Amino acid sequence: MLAELITIGDEILIGQIVDTNSAWMAQQLNAIGITVKQISSVSDNHEHILTALREARQRAGIILITGGLGPTKDDITKVALCDYFKCKLVFNQAQFNQVEAIFKSFGREVSPVNRKQAEVPELCECIVNLQGTAPAMWFDQEGITYVSMPGVPYEMKGIMEHDILPRLKERFRLPVIQHRTFLTQGVGESMLAGWIESWEDALPPNMKLAYLPNPGMVRLRISATGSDANELTNQIEEQARKLYELIGEHIYGEGEQTLPELILELLGKQQKTLSLAESCTGGNISHLITEIPGSSSAYLGGVVSYSNELKIKLLGVNRSTLETRGAVSEETALEMASGALKHLGSDYSIAITGIAGPDGGSEEKPVGTVWIAIAGPDFKLAKKFQFSKDRVRNITMASLSALNMLRKKLITS
Amino acid sequence: MLAELITIGDEILIGQIVDTNSAWMAQQLNAIGITVKQISSVSDNHEHILTALREARQRAGIILITGGLGPTKDDITKVALCDYFKCKLVFNQAQFNQVEAIFKSFGREVSPVNRKQAEVPELCECIVNLQGTAPAMWFDQEGITYVSMPGVPYEMKGIMEHDILPRLKERFRLPVIQHRTFLTQGVGESMLAGWIESWEDALPPNMKLAYLPNPGMVRLRISATGSDANELTNQIEEQARKLYELIGEHIYGEGEQTLPELILELLGKQQKTLSLAESCTGGNISHLITEIPGSSSAYLGGVVSYSNELKIKLLGVNRSTLETRGAVSEETALEMASGALKHLGSDYSIAITGIAGPDGGSEEKPVGTVWIAIAGPDFKLAKKFQFSKDRVRNITMASLSALNMLRKKLITS
Repeated sequence: MLAELITIGDEILIGQIVDTNSAWMAQQLNAIGITVKQISSVSDNHEHILTALREARQRAGIILITGGLGPTKDDITKVALCDYFKCKLVFNQAQFNQVEAIFKSFGREVSPVNRKQAEVPELCECIVNLQGTAPAMWFDQEGITYVSMPGVPYEMKGIMEHDILPRLKERFRLPVIQHRTFLTQGVGESMLAGWIESWEDALPPNMKLAYLPNPGMVRLRISATGSDANELTNQIEEQARKLYELIGEHIYGEGEQTLPELILELLGKQQKTLSLAESCTGGNISHLITEIPGSSSAYLGGVVSYSNELKIKLLGVNRSTLETRGAVSEETALEMASGALKHLGSDYSIAITGIAGPDGGSEEKPVGTVWIAIAGPDFKLAKKFQFSKDRVRNITMASLSALNMLRKKLITS
Repeated sequence: MLAELITIGDEILIGQIVDTNSAWMAQQLNAIGITVKQISSVSDNHEHILTALREARQRAGIILITGGLGPTKDDITKVALCDYFKCKLVFNQAQFNQVEAIFKSFGREVSPVNRKQAEVPELCECIVNLQGTAPAMWFDQEGITYVSMPGVPYEMKGIMEHDILPRLKERFRLPVIQHRTFLTQGVGESMLAGWIESWEDALPPNMKLAYLPNPGMVRLRISATGSDANELTNQIEEQARKLYELIGEHIYGEGEQTLPELILELLGKQQKTLSLAESCTGGNISHLITEIPGSSSAYLGGVVSYSNELKIKLLGVNRSTLETRGAVSEETALEMASGALKHLGSDYSIAITGIAGPDGGSEEKPVGTVWIAIAGPDFKLAKKFQFSKDRVRNITMASLSALNMLRKKLITS
């Protein structure tokens, strides 16, 4: 089954916003066995919208449209749809009730302009938008399904998840598709590809592997297509077992879980606390952890000891260590980690010291050299990493590598 | 002058990557007076590429194509272009020299597959890509200009900036457009819009105002179109003066400068240092500052005092203050700021304590309540903010508000 996505709005064509909706929608559609043929972004222009619809129906059986449903006069999608389907706008009570409820929650009356948001083309099935004032509209016309949705990302996502995706699955006989995503950290895409090449080549024809790289990590997604869900689950399970045999030590988790979330979960289970001593990561690990709701139950806090003086003063690093071994050294990293345990009073600690760049590198310690140490009740250990020449990339890679080092220790303790 | 953008690649249509190239290209084109009519993302399919080109030429005089120029057999853009323009591939020595230079820098010989990257359609003007192995190709055919470029963002941006945009300006008689962007912090879009409404309505017809909102800040961009650059500069200067009269206190800078960059610049000029005492922002301000190369010259470091114990131990906050006023209070914020000056040894400090959410709020101190204090050689002051219910948003808004508070003090000291 082929679909096309049409995004309506001048703000995309002047580059004011990046169209992130389309990638999300394409992912969701792919996950239920619908292939996206083309994505088009068009202007808030009546004729242009009609042309886009006419072109898309030559290629696809499903056309999903977002945007142009606001209350202002720029937003002309509904009028264009009426013209395209040769019908008129009619008032929809259910959507009006929703508009009224939203206005009431702000203590306001519905204005005539917003009343018009409850009008929909006569030929559509109106799908009430529970998160906004503009409805979604579903048309089945001449063998083609058209859906028009608001462009506000969280409204669109709500409607897609609760209404459109289930309806598309019901309306069309789609293949059963199952996915399973494996999260790896610390190894590059080409390295992984080499290790699993013969396994990947031997995958059955109904299974596919996708590499989804992010800075510092690579996600591997297996997709299996067929007609029986249980059979696919078993098939994926069998391949997953082989994958774990090959690269299991690099897989830190599955699905959507992030490394900071996993660390907090492991600490929570063990009722242990964490503190951080960050130098070259400059507070990024602390930021990644504290973005997560409830992180304060396991995370006590940290020190960003950017200067040597603060490494001495706040973490108790020995001046002589800094002078003889340097700030970026195994000894300094270990003293920072021990100092965090002692001065911040946590069960576990992570310490990072390195040269993020672009300046500060030397022949012996080039930009990208990072020492990471972790410490706990009965251990401390340090490891040297050599990342890239790019500052922002080094910060990200050092942060994820440090979290992964602690994870490996936590799962064996 | 109208342009269309065509992005070629299955990875966009399965939602594996978000097409950020198009927004960037649209911005650049708009800035030189070219309007983007449509953006289309199409698959790595011969017929589909031809259809997209035929549709685009009905609407636009400039067609910019990205993607599908890699060395693998998925990448078929060049073959499709040969078919479209009815010509054959020819070897281009200049591009081959570039391919060879890139391979030499890796200590490798050019493989036959990569040698093919130096082949281009006979009818094009080949534009050597100085950052990669795939060239850009410029075609002038039947009154329409087509340019095909690699999809790798930094390669495409390099080619656009150094070659395509200057050539487009030369090739077409484009209007002169000038822009000036004003950066505001701490006031919402609708508030700003209200204050400057009558000024905006009175703008001359050749000038336009755009609101570009980001979390915690709004950028305002004036664009002026005409034929004489000096005249436009004067016109924008006149309107900028009026804008500063209306909302000058909320404008922290112009152009692309970020608040952390500005803080580092101001500290550098005064040869002063900064330390941070972060609670609810959890290291985010430290992260924003240390992302910037060279930040260590003014930033000494910080404490993320997530727990009360650490506020006492590392910053010297009085236990009695925490017990009587609470961790989220004016007094605690001020003691944190003073403590940072004293214990971290900096000239200036910022302290933040608040309730980021989603939990931890009360009737008296709801989620989003944040106290920010700043301190320096001869002052300390604190201010209360009430942000949103969203944790990530609160962290961003508190971070930017804190930096802006310090900025206001630094520019008057």
